[in-house]
Amino acid sequence: MEIRNAWTIYLSGEIHTDWRAEIQEGINRHQLNVHVTSPVTDHQASDHCGVDILGNEDVPYWKDHKGALINRIRNQTMIGRADVVIVRFGEQYRQWNAAFDAGYAIALSKPLITIHEAVLDHALKEIDAASYGTARCTEQVIDILRYVTLATNSQKP
Amino acid sequence: MEIRNAWTIYLSGEIHTDWRAEIQEGINRHQLNVHVTSPVTDHQASDHCGVDILGNEDVPYWKDHKGALINRIRNQTMIGRADVVIVRFGEQYRQWNAAFDAGYAIALSKPLITIHEAVLDHALKEIDAASYGTARCTEQVIDILRYVTLATNSQKP
Amino acid sequence: MEIRNAWTIYLSGEIHTDWRAEIQEGINRHQLNVHVTSPVTDHQASDHCGVDILGNEDVPYWKDHKGALINRIRNQTMIGRADVVIVRFGEQYRQWNAAFDAGYAIALSKPLITIHEAVLDHALKEIDAASYGTARCTEQVIDILRYVTLATNSQKP
Amino acid sequence: MEIRNAWTIYLSGEIHTDWRAEIQEGINRHQLNVHVTSPVTDHQASDHCGVDILGNEDVPYWKDHKGALINRIRNQTMIGRADVVIVRFGEQYRQWNAAFDAGYAIALSKPLITIHEAVLDHALKEIDAASYGTARCTEQVIDILRYVTLATNSQKP
Amino acid sequence: MEIRNAWTIYLSGEIHTDWRAEIQEGINRHQLNVHVTSPVTDHQASDHCGVDILGNEDVPYWKDHKGALINRIRNQTMIGRADVVIVRFGEQYRQWNAAFDAGYAIALSKPLITIHEAVLDHALKEIDAASYGTARCTEQVIDILRYVTLATNSQKP
Amino acid sequence: MEIRNAWTIYLSGEIHTDWRAEIQEGINRHQLNVHVTSPVTDHQASDHCGVDILGNEDVPYWKDHKGALINRIRNQTMIGRADVVIVRFGEQYRQWNAAFDAGYAIALSKPLITIHEAVLDHALKEIDAASYGTARCTEQVIDILRYVTLATNSQKP
Amino acid sequence: MEIRNAWTIYLSGEIHTDWRAEIQEGINRHQLNVHVTSPVTDHQASDHCGVDILGNEDVPYWKDHKGALINRIRNQTMIGRADVVIVRFGEQYRQWNAAFDAGYAIALSKPLITIHEAVLDHALKEIDAASYGTARCTEQVIDILRYVTLATNSQKP
Amino acid sequence: MEIRNAWTIYLSGEIHTDWRAEIQEGINRHQLNVHVTSPVTDHQASDHCGVDILGNEDVPYWKDHKGALINRIRNQTMIGRADVVIVRFGEQYRQWNAAFDAGYAIALSKPLITIHEAVLDHALKEIDAASYGTARCTEQVIDILRYVTLATNSQKP
Repeated sequence: MEIRNAWTIYLSGEIHTDWRAEIQEGINRHQLNVHVTSPVTDHQASDHCGVDILGNEDVPYWKDHKGALINRIRNQTMIGRADVVIVRFGEQYRQWNAAFDAGYAIALSKPLITIHEAVLDHALKEIDAASYGTARCTEQVIDILRYVTLATNSQKP
Repeated sequence: MEIRNAWTIYLSGEIHTDWRAEIQEGINRHQLNVHVTSPVTDHQASDHCGVDILGNEDVPYWKDHKGALINRIRNQTMIGRADVVIVRFGEQYRQWNAAFDAGYAIALSKPLITIHEAVLDHALKEIDAASYGTARCTEQVIDILRYVTLATNSQKP
Repeated sequence: MEIRNAWTIYLSGEIHTDWRAEIQEGINRHQLNVHVTSPVTDHQASDHCGVDILGNEDVPYWKDHKGALINRIRNQTMIGRADVVIVRFGEQYRQWNAAFDAGYAIALSKPLITIHEAVLDHALKEIDAASYGTARCTEQVIDILRYVTLATNSQKP
Repeated sequence: MEIRNAWTIYLSGEIHTDWRAEIQEGINRHQLNVHVTSPVTDHQASDHCGVDILGNEDVPYWKDHKGALINRIRNQTMIGRADVVIVRFGEQYRQWNAAFDAGYAIALSKPLITIHEAVLDHALKEIDAASYGTARCTEQVIDILRYVTLATNSQKP
Repeated sequence: MEIRNAWTIYLSGEIHTDWRAEIQEGINRHQLNVHVTSPVTDHQASDHCGVDILGNEDVPYWKDHKGALINRIRNQTMIGRADVVIVRFGEQYRQWNAAFDAGYAIALSKPLITIHEAVLDHALKEIDAASYGTARCTEQVIDILRYVTLATNSQKP
Repeated sequence: MEIRNAWTIYLSGEIHTDWRAEIQEGINRHQLNVHVTSPVTDHQASDHCGVDILGNEDVPYWKDHKGALINRIRNQTMIGRADVVIVRFGEQYRQWNAAFDAGYAIALSKPLITIHEAVLDHALKEIDAASYGTARCTEQVIDILRYVTLATNSQKP
Repeated sequence: MEIRNAWTIYLSGEIHTDWRAEIQEGINRHQLNVHVTSPVTDHQASDHCGVDILGNEDVPYWKDHKGALINRIRNQTMIGRADVVIVRFGEQYRQWNAAFDAGYAIALSKPLITIHEAVLDHALKEIDAASYGTARCTEQVIDILRYVTLATNSQKP
Repeated sequence: MEIRNAWTIYLSGEIHTDWRAEIQEGINRHQLNVHVTSPVTDHQASDHCGVDILGNEDVPYWKDHKGALINRIRNQTMIGRADVVIVRFGEQYRQWNAAFDAGYAIALSKPLITIHEAVLDHALKEIDAASYGTARCTEQVIDILRYVTLATNSQKP
């Protein structure tokens, strides 16, 4: 596929379900020219990268700090390259970093898509209001990607 | 053709005539290294994409809202990538979105070309005055693209 | 009122009704710390300023061009200073310059409010979708200004 | 106090405790030249402003949407004016909007200070790592403001 | 006059005629809320400031270099603050610095007005084409300032 | 040569000598990974493109205007893509457009190199002072390109 | 003095001599409309502010880290407001933070002035080359400020 | 390796040890899709490039100036392209240019990694506090690059 038509998306948020794989599968299925980027989704690696690489810390705050900054190298770079930022919120965990990514993306004028169930609508109203659409499932996200990249909404195969 | 010499243009506005196809044909005829992007030009798809993908709405305003935001993902991304934004205005329809795109492009310092007949000159004076040229037909746009990309104004084949 | 709490708004669009005066009156009535700016709203002056100041033109396109560029000095400067851009669309006239201003404001990340009747909703869907709210009358705009500047929604005096 | 030495801060997050009043009181006590801005902190007003001003909505998502966009006019404007953005996270509520504000501020290169208890450190590690300091109480924030605005750390009065 | 309505203009170019004084006089005459800034217009001081302040240079190129950089502190700062940049070109001298200021201003999206006689039109066509108007005399510039700041074109007093 | 190491330069100014060909020849000779872009250097084509493409004008100012704006589409785009902007000034002609390009490039933080003889030093002092080097001949420019792209200053072949 | 003519300067670097007081004295002596800002110059306060305000740290790296981030709130804000950034380098100490401030200022397109003795010229060549002038003493800086703010180089009182 | 996954890093600072070669070797060893850029690291070439290319200078300050500006063409371009800027500080030399590069990178919102021994921690606290991590050796940098580009922290081969 031609590079000039390629889109890059960044998938932020929930790392305990396989929603990223579903979106990648949909991209493959529809042969979309979409390149997927993500934060590190290995929870253990993500939590420990700071001390694993740069040396141990006794104080948990600084252990977290070192790791979060290394992860930020990746996340900031990938959001900077993304045409669209997609953030999934789940019931579990607080996911403040996902909301942080959403705010970061909006300030850079990146189109934002949120994915979450209706039960979270009220809690997420500020982020949804800044987004370009709220999806309830990954299939809807795939449909959006298909529509905006192929410029068609015809029947699915 | 070499990627380093490639130009990308965004064709905004009128979707009920075949002016985009004419420009693409002219690009092909002159073998210009110009990549054409556009909003979704299927009127039905464009109007219904929001509810088709993200679920129905009873209130027309929100149906329009959902669709317009999804279309904006594409339009904003494509204008952001464009070297030149070309907007065609016709007699029919209000085409406020075309004028919106023109303002958006100018604020991003994108060179703007307008295409419309002389009868619209007065109504479009603010947009024409911000543009880098007002064409009366697609052949003039093709000539501009030919001139600025090939750096020559010699006889046409 | 303290300068640090002052807001500046730019009122673009329709110049044949007294909606700007209504908003100014509401600002006075509620003693809001809001400074109103506008394009030149004297239709004759606006249309003729170019040739009146810089000399006559035989070709109408250039007469319009000279005037539109002088008006743009004011409009671009005032939008640049505005905290909020408010655009009113009416049935009459094409008002492409109002839509242009809206696109220009959005690209500069200025909060946009539109005012128009429901009959124009479909035609204005792209601009409404980029806005932070669609008002049906000036009183609603005054209420928004009151709420965002005073941070309260209590009963009106 | 001279306007040239004035600082503006934006206090985002928790609205159910009186931390904003505490910071204002500390600013008064130390006679700091600091101007405090905030989102609308009246929970009811904030939740209902959209439908109160622009008309009712049957669907809760759109009711939230209208309100969140009106609140965003204020929040985006105030963050844009702030020299420092201060975000307080509490145990209660998800406060995704606070995290969104933090990401938005960081993308605009605004210095960020977080306030929260240690029990939230791990959940907030990405935001803390982007911040310029994590305070445990409002008194620490006041001390930071005192230090950075007065350029001294001498004994408090 | 209220600070919120004030305009700042930067007058670049020709320093051997009294066009700046004429514009200032017109601003006074019409009581316009316009603040005038300029480069250093004392030719001797401007040429020698570098070596006068920072010590002598044997090589003329470096003497010029030191002076030009000190002047640039002022010019860059003043253009940065200007709402409108006005550049006067005369027959005498090459005035490449005036053309440089024009390019600098346009890249910063500052409205540009040029002043020169018709005999220079062809040589200045690129700069005029980027400008928002070409005046032939200072009175026309004053009229533009009067119109854009007062938003009226009524009879002069 | 690898695209990741490629440099793009824009050659502005003098169009009546073959300095551009000399730089291109030097790039070929040293096999530098440098892509050369330029304005349209065919004087006749450049002067007439506006009326040739968009229709005749009776008034010379508008003929120039139309042409200059079309040329600006190319020039602005190419300067925007350039890593380095190189401007040659000669004795002949006023070359205000070259000085304009220099100012435009500096405002975009593009490294600027000037080429001219010493006799023009005083007249060009402001532009030279903003540049990253003043060359006296094309061979010096080629040496700079060779040095900054190959990161070596070893003997020439 | 009128606020519209006011200049703000930021004095970075050396904190063990009284060069800041000398510049302030010169500003007073010449009654210049220049507002001086600085980092915290109390060495002890600056080194300890992090742990003094936000609590102790056992690891020196984190003690430094907490303090440096709080100081950065002030420094980044003040550089952001400055029209001109002035950095003094001395023989003593490494002053990497002063060089960091210089790089930060240049990337923000702030005019930079350096002050240091000739013995440091070679070591500071990259920073001097990005500056708008290298002064040897504070009196030269005062003369520059006098010249660029008063636009005159006449005899001192 | 796919261009869409490629990272570009800029290695600033110390030129008298082989730390750049070590990082390149680690990138090769792990087959990372990382493109390395650097300033000119040939000390002699770097010091003399100005006079070698553009002609001799009698005054050492201007010899340094000419060279530093030519080097800046490369350094500024390469930092502008870099995803991550990595700066190594050693005991030897003052390396103010390295600190300048760090400040420049941070102002452009580029993730910064520092490398230095603990003995320099206090002197580098401002730069470390702006960085996304402080490494003690090149192997740690390689581990960071491996982690952020491969998104894994698994056992090394």
